[in-house]
Amino acid sequence: TNYCGWQVQRSRKKSIQGVLQETLSRILQEEIRVKGAGRTDAGVHARAQVAHFETSSRRSLPTIQRAANALLPRSIVISRVREVPPFFHSRFQARWKTYRYTICNRRYRPVFDRQQVYYYPGKLDCEAMQQAARCLIGRHDFKAFQSAGGRQETVRTVKKIKIVKRSDFFYIDIEADGFLYNMVRAVVGTLIEAGRGRFSLPYVKNILLSGERKLAGPTVPAQGLCLMQVKYR
Amino acid sequence: TNYCGWQVQRSRKKSIQGVLQETLSRILQEEIRVKGAGRTDAGVHARAQVAHFETSSRRSLPTIQRAANALLPRSIVISRVREVPPFFHSRFQARWKTYRYTICNRRYRPVFDRQQVYYYPGKLDCEAMQQAARCLIGRHDFKAFQSAGGRQETVRTVKKIKIVKRSDFFYIDIEADGFLYNMVRAVVGTLIEAGRGRFSLPYVKNILLSGERKLAGPTVPAQGLCLMQVKYR
Repeated sequence: TNYCGWQVQRSRKKSIQGVLQETLSRILQEEIRVKGAGRTDAGVHARAQVAHFETSSRRSLPTIQRAANALLPRSIVISRVREVPPFFHSRFQARWKTYRYTICNRRYRPVFDRQQVYYYPGKLDCEAMQQAARCLIGRHDFKAFQSAGGRQETVRTVKKIKIVKRSDFFYIDIEADGFLYNMVRAVVGTLIEAGRGRFSLPYVKNILLSGERKLAGPTVPAQGLCLMQVKYR
Repeated sequence: TNYCGWQVQRSRKKSIQGVLQETLSRILQEEIRVKGAGRTDAGVHARAQVAHFETSSRRSLPTIQRAANALLPRSIVISRVREVPPFFHSRFQARWKTYRYTICNRRYRPVFDRQQVYYYPGKLDCEAMQQAARCLIGRHDFKAFQSAGGRQETVRTVKKIKIVKRSDFFYIDIEADGFLYNMVRAVVGTLIEAGRGRFSLPYVKNILLSGERKLAGPTVPAQGLCLMQVKYR
């Protein structure tokens, strides 16, 4: 919220990467370039973004963390800092990433967490969503779940999709070795269609096989999405 | 957040009560006066405020709710509407109220929920807090836990204080038949002192007996506090 996303862009809005770079450059008194594990879009949040940077500074890690957290805006915090070997790369060496999509499913709109959840008031069958999700597990061509302007190489391995309903909220956790452009949001849009009874199981299987974006469900809004975990070898 | 609290005040900031009154008056085409169960201060939130109003309108309850939620700002929502007997009063007939105070207890500050939690990074002994809380259960004179400018009648019954630690958060739920001015915030400030090892159990018992505000812990900030439930006979 209030950022143009992770990546530095030529827009009036600030990016998380840009703000981190400015802050660290100021503290370390040298030009710092920060690279993140996931380039989250505007409106998407992250609880566990992993980012790395190189510095010639000899300051201690706790000092850097404390100084950065004091200078960063209230909407960004560094939860942990550690030294890594020179060959480490937060994105290229990420093995599994988990995104969570949160749906607020009730008669009245969310208030406190309205920037972090998607409000969908219609009836949703959790069981049907879980069944549809099972069709997507494994190594598949996810071309049908990629928005225009994405990658050429569209085969990915989805390790797990966990759908939990707790009171008025659905939490959809998707773990994969990589995600195509808007992939989680198109998968969730498809699961919602299954939950509404609009997409049958054979239909969902067919979306995958077809590779056609127009067969899958809509791209749900960014604000329900959160990067939860990045695992390394 | 962004309101001067529940009650209409002569300030530049809006109040929840005022915004509700304006909205309902507009929908029902008559002057509506809304009365709430708890007059929460600026910065305090409510998940379950109960408020009542009288109207001569014949519109259906679902229509009123839908229209109000469409017009209300995103920070206020009406979760449920029902008709009550003419003698019902949301505040005078409330039997038990539960407030929750949430403490974020870790090395780095909260981000997503920073308006709804109090950040306390120091070490807290949950067990010691629970023991201190037990001293306050029952019917007592809570004068020592009231800020200046409060009530004359300071005896209240605290039915329950539940302290739960889940990951980096402490949730302190306090149920009572009524609360003095800033009482929850002074109780939590006292429990934190106990959790830090500054207040012994005999000391906490003595605070109650003394009736002296200066002996109790500090009034913790408003933003950790939330009205969770109001029970009626």
